[in-house]
Amino acid sequence: MGKEASSSFIEDYWQNLKEGIMNYKHKVQYYETDMMGITHHSNYVRWMEEARIEFMKDFGWDYSLNDEFGISAPVISSSCEYKKTTTFGDVIEIEVLVEEYNSVRLKFLYFMYNAKGDVVCIGRTTHCFLSKEGRIIIIKKVLPSLEETLLKIYSLSKETISKR
Amino acid sequence: MGKEASSSFIEDYWQNLKEGIMNYKHKVQYYETDMMGITHHSNYVRWMEEARIEFMKDFGWDYSLNDEFGISAPVISSSCEYKKTTTFGDVIEIEVLVEEYNSVRLKFLYFMYNAKGDVVCIGRTTHCFLSKEGRIIIIKKVLPSLEETLLKIYSLSKETISKR
Amino acid sequence: MGKEASSSFIEDYWQNLKEGIMNYKHKVQYYETDMMGITHHSNYVRWMEEARIEFMKDFGWDYSLNDEFGISAPVISSSCEYKKTTTFGDVIEIEVLVEEYNSVRLKFLYFMYNAKGDVVCIGRTTHCFLSKEGRIIIIKKVLPSLEETLLKIYSLSKETISKR
Amino acid sequence: MGKEASSSFIEDYWQNLKEGIMNYKHKVQYYETDMMGITHHSNYVRWMEEARIEFMKDFGWDYSLNDEFGISAPVISSSCEYKKTTTFGDVIEIEVLVEEYNSVRLKFLYFMYNAKGDVVCIGRTTHCFLSKEGRIIIIKKVLPSLEETLLKIYSLSKETISKR
Repeated sequence: MGKEASSSFIEDYWQNLKEGIMNYKHKVQYYETDMMGITHHSNYVRWMEEARIEFMKDFGWDYSLNDEFGISAPVISSSCEYKKTTTFGDVIEIEVLVEEYNSVRLKFLYFMYNAKGDVVCIGRTTHCFLSKEGRIIIIKKVLPSLEETLLKIYSLSKETISKR
Repeated sequence: MGKEASSSFIEDYWQNLKEGIMNYKHKVQYYETDMMGITHHSNYVRWMEEARIEFMKDFGWDYSLNDEFGISAPVISSSCEYKKTTTFGDVIEIEVLVEEYNSVRLKFLYFMYNAKGDVVCIGRTTHCFLSKEGRIIIIKKVLPSLEETLLKIYSLSKETISKR
Repeated sequence: MGKEASSSFIEDYWQNLKEGIMNYKHKVQYYETDMMGITHHSNYVRWMEEARIEFMKDFGWDYSLNDEFGISAPVISSSCEYKKTTTFGDVIEIEVLVEEYNSVRLKFLYFMYNAKGDVVCIGRTTHCFLSKEGRIIIIKKVLPSLEETLLKIYSLSKETISKR
Repeated sequence: MGKEASSSFIEDYWQNLKEGIMNYKHKVQYYETDMMGITHHSNYVRWMEEARIEFMKDFGWDYSLNDEFGISAPVISSSCEYKKTTTFGDVIEIEVLVEEYNSVRLKFLYFMYNAKGDVVCIGRTTHCFLSKEGRIIIIKKVLPSLEETLLKIYSLSKETISKR
């Protein structure tokens, strides 16, 4: 958890968000469409995973956490509100925010945009933290530097959401 | 919409539910697992689609409705609460209920069980009704026999849910 | 490896094949279609895996072999010849045969049929045998009873293929 | 079919290949892994589609050909030789070449590399050309400029393959 490194990353990320620059893009693949000619709705959950993994890695939470500290953050719930259809070739920009965080539970909020800037889907995933043995972990106690990072992201996320 | 036919089907379906007999089963495939050794969470949304399509067909709502009446019922939201992990070879039984229905919106509720009878996932999908031209359809006005069927299923679903 | 049990299963399997009764069926799911309105070609490889796993289990080769003997049979090549398109709701029957076997390499041949009995796809997968440590295993030396079963299946497969 | 535009693109593409610069990259997603901890083998066929579509678009063959000329190029066979396993987070570079072309049939050859430059998979797909009505099309007769482009790519591909 390089705190310094991720701190500057956090500033950049939010500066980008303010300017409407998303950090993650997914191009809709042909095999992701269905016979209605649109993206099958099950794929958005997968893109949320793609964007979340990149986002977390950028903030210093690599899958190496699993190896180093034996911490995993399984998905305990997920949801999608489909606002507009998308299809083959569309480039979807995905904004990841933290909607809730309290050291034992983390809720991500995802806004997905098409090239015109329309929101095509709003997603959410909730995660808990587990040790290698499958026990609930309290981040504050186990990884104070991660706690600090997540609290900062949570605070910036709240601010971002409230301004809309 | 064979009303008589589907009516008797409805009775059978609820009789089965009372006795704990599910109508739809999905066997977890090897390609549905991920590197954690469990079913990847994105698959549950697909199984909900499988179960819903079978359920609707059994009640007389075939994809032929699309052809005959030009009515489709797109997914406008979906959600999953993951209760227990599942993995390769597990047979998942899926119970489909109607949690809300008001002639313009239909909300399905899915209980998914493992072989031991534990709930592994609770899912929901919300649907609207669209004409071929993409306009909102009010079922009551366009397909009274479907309205009747859906109201009956909704009423039996409420009863089932309240008894738990 | 219950040799007796699987022996009688082998007889039944080939008796069924002679009568045109396939042992594995896959119903094409909505999410398996693409914007051309047909099954996306990448799914056939997955169905081959489904059918192969069932076939092997029926002959006594469970995934328990992995646990008990630490033997796995990774796919080292795969191929598909697409003969006819299929789509949502089609029930595909899959016939699994052994096209080659020599104690270090196993080649499966798959015929996939639609409801009319037309071949829709011919597939092949080649497998080697690996120990837990990733070393090549020679079945004849390590599991003579499996060798016997596979040779019998190979012989019946050759006979079946030659008669067509 | 902007012949001039695609011509210069062809030069660039082959210059890149000579220098070992691939034009298409796919990052292995978490949801593409299986319980063995590696990429599930069915995904490579999908990445071949991704790379092929980009490659064809770069040479001026857009999906707009479908709209403008009603020409499609369905996959009639596919194959993969799996050389090395890959897993979550790996960036796979994909080289697309034309192994055969004769105006009615087009065979793509794909080399997929990991970050170390090892070949992880060699793939092939064969395509025919169909009109909107589903009739076989002879490119030479219908789209001479596409014929010219494909012949040039075929010739450069042969040269590239022969030098290895």
